[in-house]
Amino acid sequence: MANAPLDRSAALLSKLSAVRLLAMDVDGVLTCGEIEVNSDGFETKRFHVADGLGIQLCLLAGLQVAWISGRSSEAVSRRAAELNIPHLTMGCANKAKAVAELIGRFTLQPENVAYIGDDLNDLPALSLAGVRFAPSNAISEVKALADMVTERSGGCGAVREVCDVILKAQEKWNGAVEIYLAGLLRP
Amino acid sequence: MANAPLDRSAALLSKLSAVRLLAMDVDGVLTCGEIEVNSDGFETKRFHVADGLGIQLCLLAGLQVAWISGRSSEAVSRRAAELNIPHLTMGCANKAKAVAELIGRFTLQPENVAYIGDDLNDLPALSLAGVRFAPSNAISEVKALADMVTERSGGCGAVREVCDVILKAQEKWNGAVEIYLAGLLRP
Amino acid sequence: MANAPLDRSAALLSKLSAVRLLAMDVDGVLTCGEIEVNSDGFETKRFHVADGLGIQLCLLAGLQVAWISGRSSEAVSRRAAELNIPHLTMGCANKAKAVAELIGRFTLQPENVAYIGDDLNDLPALSLAGVRFAPSNAISEVKALADMVTERSGGCGAVREVCDVILKAQEKWNGAVEIYLAGLLRP
Amino acid sequence: MANAPLDRSAALLSKLSAVRLLAMDVDGVLTCGEIEVNSDGFETKRFHVADGLGIQLCLLAGLQVAWISGRSSEAVSRRAAELNIPHLTMGCANKAKAVAELIGRFTLQPENVAYIGDDLNDLPALSLAGVRFAPSNAISEVKALADMVTERSGGCGAVREVCDVILKAQEKWNGAVEIYLAGLLRP
Repeated sequence: MANAPLDRSAALLSKLSAVRLLAMDVDGVLTCGEIEVNSDGFETKRFHVADGLGIQLCLLAGLQVAWISGRSSEAVSRRAAELNIPHLTMGCANKAKAVAELIGRFTLQPENVAYIGDDLNDLPALSLAGVRFAPSNAISEVKALADMVTERSGGCGAVREVCDVILKAQEKWNGAVEIYLAGLLRP
Repeated sequence: MANAPLDRSAALLSKLSAVRLLAMDVDGVLTCGEIEVNSDGFETKRFHVADGLGIQLCLLAGLQVAWISGRSSEAVSRRAAELNIPHLTMGCANKAKAVAELIGRFTLQPENVAYIGDDLNDLPALSLAGVRFAPSNAISEVKALADMVTERSGGCGAVREVCDVILKAQEKWNGAVEIYLAGLLRP
Repeated sequence: MANAPLDRSAALLSKLSAVRLLAMDVDGVLTCGEIEVNSDGFETKRFHVADGLGIQLCLLAGLQVAWISGRSSEAVSRRAAELNIPHLTMGCANKAKAVAELIGRFTLQPENVAYIGDDLNDLPALSLAGVRFAPSNAISEVKALADMVTERSGGCGAVREVCDVILKAQEKWNGAVEIYLAGLLRP
Repeated sequence: MANAPLDRSAALLSKLSAVRLLAMDVDGVLTCGEIEVNSDGFETKRFHVADGLGIQLCLLAGLQVAWISGRSSEAVSRRAAELNIPHLTMGCANKAKAVAELIGRFTLQPENVAYIGDDLNDLPALSLAGVRFAPSNAISEVKALADMVTERSGGCGAVREVCDVILKAQEKWNGAVEIYLAGLLRP
């Protein structure tokens, strides 16, 4: 809640209205940052069901969503497929370049991009984005750069908070929820 | 404890006395909401041993118990089988419809149904139920609708709290515990 | 810390001095109570390294140690084997009977038995034991019966706390640590 | 934060400047201490992505890094390989001997060694090291010996805190981050 008065400020609301692409890191943002290594060399990832629902709402509201990970994991690509994430980049050393490519492909301006990151390797991509989010577990250097620090930590609903705040600022939340619930109630 | 004075109110006790069916969501209610994806595409689910015991007490006391999940998981069906859950619905988009079918099958009234949910996709089913529970990790829209918010979060004993409060309101808790312990002590 | 003044009381110290057998439940005591179900039907258990060390100290000090679980799990038997737990009972509905058998086998009195449990199905065994421990996550009925409630929860070092308090009350802690460290330093 | 005034003291800064080798325990330091046992006998380990990045910075700054574990695990050797840990010792009963060998191999003095440990079996190695770190989850005997207790617990970023504090004391942090980020931005 540290940033609460600022978060809801007119300046932030104005920034949030411009967002067309929501890009995010994976480890520490969509997960709590644990690297769960099995003996067979496979990795297990623990995502959060609430983040998945928030991302679905963003997609229903017409936002672009991108996952950009410095690592590669079959578990990440499986979860991305389940959620129909349109843009998945894995094994990506240069996340800023990945964001720049998306900006080019969709003819966006930096102010149309929101980015969620938690650590040093997210700083270049965060610097590129017009709206910068940090989960509560982010390092201080990232938090210092962030327009908003979420109350929840990565893997525990941080991404959902970001989805909700963007959709509400754009007055698209009620509409997205209605479409979502109507889809559920379809016979 | 936020709702404690209200929780134990005469109005809630009266509502709890009418419960014949305890229906609940899975992810975020029987688990903490983590979607644990392995590289081989299988999912691991982490249930809580205390919830299992609470559900056993409800069954011993003659309540119907239903698990209704929007997702499908072999881990969920295995745990349901171990606990002899009589009604398991998976891959269910329309949870309200699933609840309505159970109401029809057992010739119940809505006031005979308690439902535990944590997120937007539980709202229609929650609205149908006479008694509405939210684990502490539920979103604010669900909590606003809830008759009682548990102290524990999903996957950490939230369901046990609901089982205990229903059985105690119905004065069936002591009897169920006696039957349960007698079963354990049988040679 | 709720019970701290009582815990260290002369009455408790006297009780602890008599302990010859430390028996304990598994789920919720040696683990946090999560039942982690994989799709292939296998279960994963998460023990704590600090509990393992505490149990090793108890064995070095000449105490008997028993694990008594209502469930059966290959993961439990593997961890028990690694720690050389002398008495492992799994799939045990009647834990009180299992404790009574150990009392008979070693010609003990109830006051020589310490038991750690967290839920209803531990009540009969707890009632049999001379010294009763509850981890912080135990249900209120178990805590009400306990001589001491640990500060740590099950799976997070609760068992280590019990090991330490027994060995220190018996003035065997320093000796056990010396033997343990000497073993480590052996070339 | 308990030790904060002391941590940043001139005495500690002076000690930190001398560090050339950062050695650490694995269970309870690089993980939260959970021993996650699968039914097939394999173990899963959960490391933290932030610790990995901190260790990479230390290696970029020219420090030696060693992992010394009393246990053996394929998951540990896989994570060590991914991070290019130069010195990995597993199944090590005598950690002090392992530290002494590294001191000999690199012609160091004890004051050039920092060690992070959390339990009794780390005491001999900690006693040998010039700078001693304990994660917040360490036992009191280890904390009593520590020059600094981290705010984060093992597996949740404790090692990252140690990496940062050493590199900042040596005024190598900015440089290491620059090299690290330049590597990421390379086309």
